[in-house]
Amino acid sequence: MPTVSDIGEDALVRRLTAPLHQDVRVLTGPGDDCAVVERPEGRLLLKADAIIEGIHFTRDAEPQLIGRKALARAISDIAAMGGVPRHALVTLVLSGDTEVAFVEALYAGMAALAQQFGVSIVGGETSRGAQLMISVALTGEVPHAWLCRNAAQVGDAIFVTGHLGGSITGKHLTFTPRVEQSQWLMQHHRPNAMMDLSDGPAKDLPRMATASGADFIIDEAALPCTPGCTAAQAWGDGEDYELLFTIGDEQAGALQRDWSNAFPSLELTRIGTLVAKGEGRVPSFTTQGWEHFK
Amino acid sequence: MPTVSDIGEDALVRRLTAPLHQDVRVLTGPGDDCAVVERPEGRLLLKADAIIEGIHFTRDAEPQLIGRKALARAISDIAAMGGVPRHALVTLVLSGDTEVAFVEALYAGMAALAQQFGVSIVGGETSRGAQLMISVALTGEVPHAWLCRNAAQVGDAIFVTGHLGGSITGKHLTFTPRVEQSQWLMQHHRPNAMMDLSDGPAKDLPRMATASGADFIIDEAALPCTPGCTAAQAWGDGEDYELLFTIGDEQAGALQRDWSNAFPSLELTRIGTLVAKGEGRVPSFTTQGWEHFK
Repeated sequence: MPTVSDIGEDALVRRLTAPLHQDVRVLTGPGDDCAVVERPEGRLLLKADAIIEGIHFTRDAEPQLIGRKALARAISDIAAMGGVPRHALVTLVLSGDTEVAFVEALYAGMAALAQQFGVSIVGGETSRGAQLMISVALTGEVPHAWLCRNAAQVGDAIFVTGHLGGSITGKHLTFTPRVEQSQWLMQHHRPNAMMDLSDGPAKDLPRMATASGADFIIDEAALPCTPGCTAAQAWGDGEDYELLFTIGDEQAGALQRDWSNAFPSLELTRIGTLVAKGEGRVPSFTTQGWEHFK
Repeated sequence: MPTVSDIGEDALVRRLTAPLHQDVRVLTGPGDDCAVVERPEGRLLLKADAIIEGIHFTRDAEPQLIGRKALARAISDIAAMGGVPRHALVTLVLSGDTEVAFVEALYAGMAALAQQFGVSIVGGETSRGAQLMISVALTGEVPHAWLCRNAAQVGDAIFVTGHLGGSITGKHLTFTPRVEQSQWLMQHHRPNAMMDLSDGPAKDLPRMATASGADFIIDEAALPCTPGCTAAQAWGDGEDYELLFTIGDEQAGALQRDWSNAFPSLELTRIGTLVAKGEGRVPSFTTQGWEHFK
């Protein structure tokens, strides 16, 4: 009998979610950064995400940063859809011998980030378990439109924000979700497709290209590496939580000019081009990006 | 330094959630079965809940029933607020050596219950972890009003649906969330306060009374025991997921008549009365109900 490791995370999620019945009010179901559901007054984004001790953080990290990361990842997914985060529910799983002060610090880190992004934590549950786990469910709003990962067009320029690689040395705990940049893009240069980079371009860019029925060519020399990191690390390390998006080639120049005025201290880099299925080139890097079950 | 076991679940959640800032659109924040947030067209209920191997189920349970329970608990919380469940997000934490067939069966059980209750599972994530955990976030709708646990009135009759006690022998996996009964109550005999019985009346009734600033007197002989169970078990076992609610004493008779016409096969039992603070009587049972961290 095949195990979860044998088939990997993406195949598992596809097998689990493909048979699910979706009602007519589900505009975007499983498989994107968030779900989008229709409500009488507009659309509601829904996201749930969990971080687990030993996988997403170690117990020697500052508890404020552990709590911060749990919420920041979900906010990043809301940003990836072009939305604004609103209300969060938090489920904590912890062992009985956990110090209360540790849990309070963890919550304080989460609450500080929530306030910074205008998020209300409207519910909190706790349960006992051997491994510390923080699960966050977050709603978001998209007043007019939202962005999926499956609408990239052949010929689109592929962009990433910020620098990539080496996040394990700290950025995976301290990154800033790109809500402001996402909102700016929605207003000024709306991408065709967008997602956040949680598992590295090695893993996430093929996800976007496949969802859009396209392939890609990467300009390996252009990858915006974190100082001290190689291009292979930028490609495969993951947990950068930067935006990955595509936009029509003819808009690329104007976007880059306007971006550097709007965000002079955050780089925006064109890393490649979407091409027709079968015309892509496999990058030279051998790294495969982050895979949960391998 | 005190640990989580030292202070217990309720005190922990209070300490964590008390400092949280809530915006004006949060109508009911932490501390009830669900959060209620204001949206332009109405109210949105939000609930997150997790079940964990070794705590809420054992691995020898049927996987369909494990998945079913994870969603049923959240649906029960939506029902407890007088709401109708709508959209669910599922986060699975499992080890890489878990058989895919097991996970598919677990999801099938969840999907079947979702369909029965008109719920769409709109997102699914997986992550690696040592202990199997299923976290469900669920939205619900309350077109007109909703019910909190903190509005019980002195003099109210206290009711429970169904039978209580001994759920560990099976009902904790197979219970039916009381959405239909909750909707009927909202339309015909609206309670003053309502919640679902997850940790047993021993734990849940004091929660409701305290939130409402009142005490209670229990008619121990009236407790509707599951066949084969003692009144002490009905009081303290927990995981019955029946509705606990209060309604004005003068409406109690009409409610019971109408109920037996509407739901001839589901008992409704008056188990006591809400009384003023300081006038309550401690039941003779020594059991304390389910406590996660003790």
